[in-house]
Amino acid sequence: MRAWHKEELVPGEALAHRLFDTLARETADPPGVTRIGFGEGERFAHELLMDEAAARGFEVAHDAAGNLFLTQPGEDRSGTIYIGSHVDTVPHGGNYDGAAGVIAGLAAQAIFHAAGVKPPFDITVLALRAEESCWFPHSYIGSKTALGIFDGKLLDTLKRSDNGRTLADHMCEGGFDPEAVRRGESLIERKQAVAYIEPHIEQAPVLEIERLPVGIVTGIRGSFRYRTAKCIGAYAHSGAMPREYRKDAAAATGELILRMDELWADLLTAGRDLTVTFGEVMTNPEQHGFSKVAGETHICLDVRSQDKQTLETVRERLMAIADDIAARRQVRFEWGELTGSTPAVMSKPLQDMMAAAASQAGIPYRVMASGAGHDAATFALEGIPTAMIFIRNQNGSHNPDEAMDMADFDQALSVLVHMLSMPTAAWRG
Amino acid sequence: MRAWHKEELVPGEALAHRLFDTLARETADPPGVTRIGFGEGERFAHELLMDEAAARGFEVAHDAAGNLFLTQPGEDRSGTIYIGSHVDTVPHGGNYDGAAGVIAGLAAQAIFHAAGVKPPFDITVLALRAEESCWFPHSYIGSKTALGIFDGKLLDTLKRSDNGRTLADHMCEGGFDPEAVRRGESLIERKQAVAYIEPHIEQAPVLEIERLPVGIVTGIRGSFRYRTAKCIGAYAHSGAMPREYRKDAAAATGELILRMDELWADLLTAGRDLTVTFGEVMTNPEQHGFSKVAGETHICLDVRSQDKQTLETVRERLMAIADDIAARRQVRFEWGELTGSTPAVMSKPLQDMMAAAASQAGIPYRVMASGAGHDAATFALEGIPTAMIFIRNQNGSHNPDEAMDMADFDQALSVLVHMLSMPTAAWRG
Repeated sequence: MRAWHKEELVPGEALAHRLFDTLARETADPPGVTRIGFGEGERFAHELLMDEAAARGFEVAHDAAGNLFLTQPGEDRSGTIYIGSHVDTVPHGGNYDGAAGVIAGLAAQAIFHAAGVKPPFDITVLALRAEESCWFPHSYIGSKTALGIFDGKLLDTLKRSDNGRTLADHMCEGGFDPEAVRRGESLIERKQAVAYIEPHIEQAPVLEIERLPVGIVTGIRGSFRYRTAKCIGAYAHSGAMPREYRKDAAAATGELILRMDELWADLLTAGRDLTVTFGEVMTNPEQHGFSKVAGETHICLDVRSQDKQTLETVRERLMAIADDIAARRQVRFEWGELTGSTPAVMSKPLQDMMAAAASQAGIPYRVMASGAGHDAATFALEGIPTAMIFIRNQNGSHNPDEAMDMADFDQALSVLVHMLSMPTAAWRG
Repeated sequence: MRAWHKEELVPGEALAHRLFDTLARETADPPGVTRIGFGEGERFAHELLMDEAAARGFEVAHDAAGNLFLTQPGEDRSGTIYIGSHVDTVPHGGNYDGAAGVIAGLAAQAIFHAAGVKPPFDITVLALRAEESCWFPHSYIGSKTALGIFDGKLLDTLKRSDNGRTLADHMCEGGFDPEAVRRGESLIERKQAVAYIEPHIEQAPVLEIERLPVGIVTGIRGSFRYRTAKCIGAYAHSGAMPREYRKDAAAATGELILRMDELWADLLTAGRDLTVTFGEVMTNPEQHGFSKVAGETHICLDVRSQDKQTLETVRERLMAIADDIAARRQVRFEWGELTGSTPAVMSKPLQDMMAAAASQAGIPYRVMASGAGHDAATFALEGIPTAMIFIRNQNGSHNPDEAMDMADFDQALSVLVHMLSMPTAAWRG
């Protein structure tokens, strides 16, 4: 691979820093920024990116859904390496969740362009639409429409949370073509797609804690979720109801939490990839009381793993543990709707290339799972070789305090540029 | 003791049934009844009781606080057996919580009166004021004022929840004398007080489950309570935050609940009297989410026992368990205000007399603790020999569905009348 000198990266770094500043200023919505999917902030970001791409002579296109494609021709035009992410944000979110990936792609293109070097294949930067499901309550609208696999019925049923108008309506308003989306039209030809690479801020503080600038992602955890589970017992007098007659929903829920936590620890020890989280646990505020045995709890359980089999194992064990608790404690669990997502494995060859690029660039990294979902999952599950690079980020994401050190971004950009310089044979290998 | 014939009890039973009906009708506030402490419903009940007592020639008096004393002279007027409870209710409460005890006393007097039999000592029926702390947020206002041990400062600081007016104001309005209450004036002379007996509906379904009409109470559980405890962790991404870096308040709280529950089971096995209840357990609804590790929980813990030492043991163990959890799970427990009450032991000789009376009357009973607080605790803690008899009750208390079968009430009345017929030597023994 080509060894890039530090100063050769400066044009990309400078462009990126400028784009971050412009986005932060122009989409400010104190505290933080707001870029609504198919809204003004997202549109502004697209125009900003299009101008920069056009100024460098790259090919600029929107697909039928409004996803933005910025293509820099490569030596070999029979393949395309996609670098993408989203530019929308949650309300009063941070400036980097999503945008960092798209800007990294454009910055990489700018580095090749400034150096007068053609990348091995075409590089297409993808700004995918409406990734934050707070706007339209559905995952991966941008990547699914970009790949032509979006369920057309949703065009008319998904309504934007701020104005109640449909996704189709918003596509029309932007000058796009929901009917073509419905037909599955796509600018991405599977044969043409060499890889999809998504740089993204890490949404947890693992890199921060471990003092590493970047992470190479092994896979995107899938999940199963019970968001509306209940434990039903019976209210009773706290001082007067003997233990043997209680149907204590709080005690039963406490036991469920602890036993699932112990299961988690056991499975981690056995080498499984897993997270187990009870994010919401509540006795019923309308009926509970300090002097009442709790008759009901609301429970949210979110279980994630890169491994589908592990998710199934945990769900089976959950049911067995809950049945045992219910029988002993005379309560009933009502699970409500089961939702979830399929784990998506990142391409091992791409991970190896990314690791080699990081070594070449002298940048330390961690190999890690992605606990959060990303559009990369859609590409991976469609069989397109996919990789992700995480960038160290302070203060989490989806909040105005989200932070990313530009020096860390530059390191990720360097890894990306080194990787993109690898010969076609490495990519097609 | 005198053996009472079934038909001799009828005048008391009939009076009681009539009084229950009148109260239910005249203090109806659908669903249920409402008799506000120092309010109209309580006043109505007092007048109803006074009329019945006066009609039988009993002595009728209110003390300075407005507690009602209905005295039937006994053979030996050097002693008084008090039979009391309260006549106020929670809003939309049931007709029996409190009133059953006062009415049982008056019905017992009526039985002696109708039979032309004098009780061994004076029998004074006590209708104590404002026992339900929903009206004035303080426990045992009636028994404390009746015994002259009420903290005078509270007369001006306690405000009724429905109208914001002070306790002193309400006493004045009723024609009573808060200044005398402040001075500790009391109609009860300690030397004169032979016993205080409080019949009360059971507020849990133990008698119902065990198919027994009455219970003889061994003691009133004291308590310690943390009503505003918190577990503080740190919010984090549910999928991305590894186990080793979590500060999961929900998992820590789950472990606390289960370990306290196990401690409870162990102490019961060791023969201790104890209840342990987490009545409120809540992640913070303003910040929690299905995909977030919980950063905070609100916890209410209510621990009760008839044995002060057991309460201390449990509190020490609670702190040790919490410290252990906090250290391992990187969370912090904030306990907030500690409140509680002192356990009150019922007189063993009176329990034995009550048991003998039940046997004499052929009525099966259970010996049991009172988990709820009652005015009887004030009398017992003041050194007056105190007893309670529980009456089977369906559907708990403090709700409009509260229920008591008149046949069960009649059985409790029969126990009471048989007990009251025991000779003075038995009472003074």
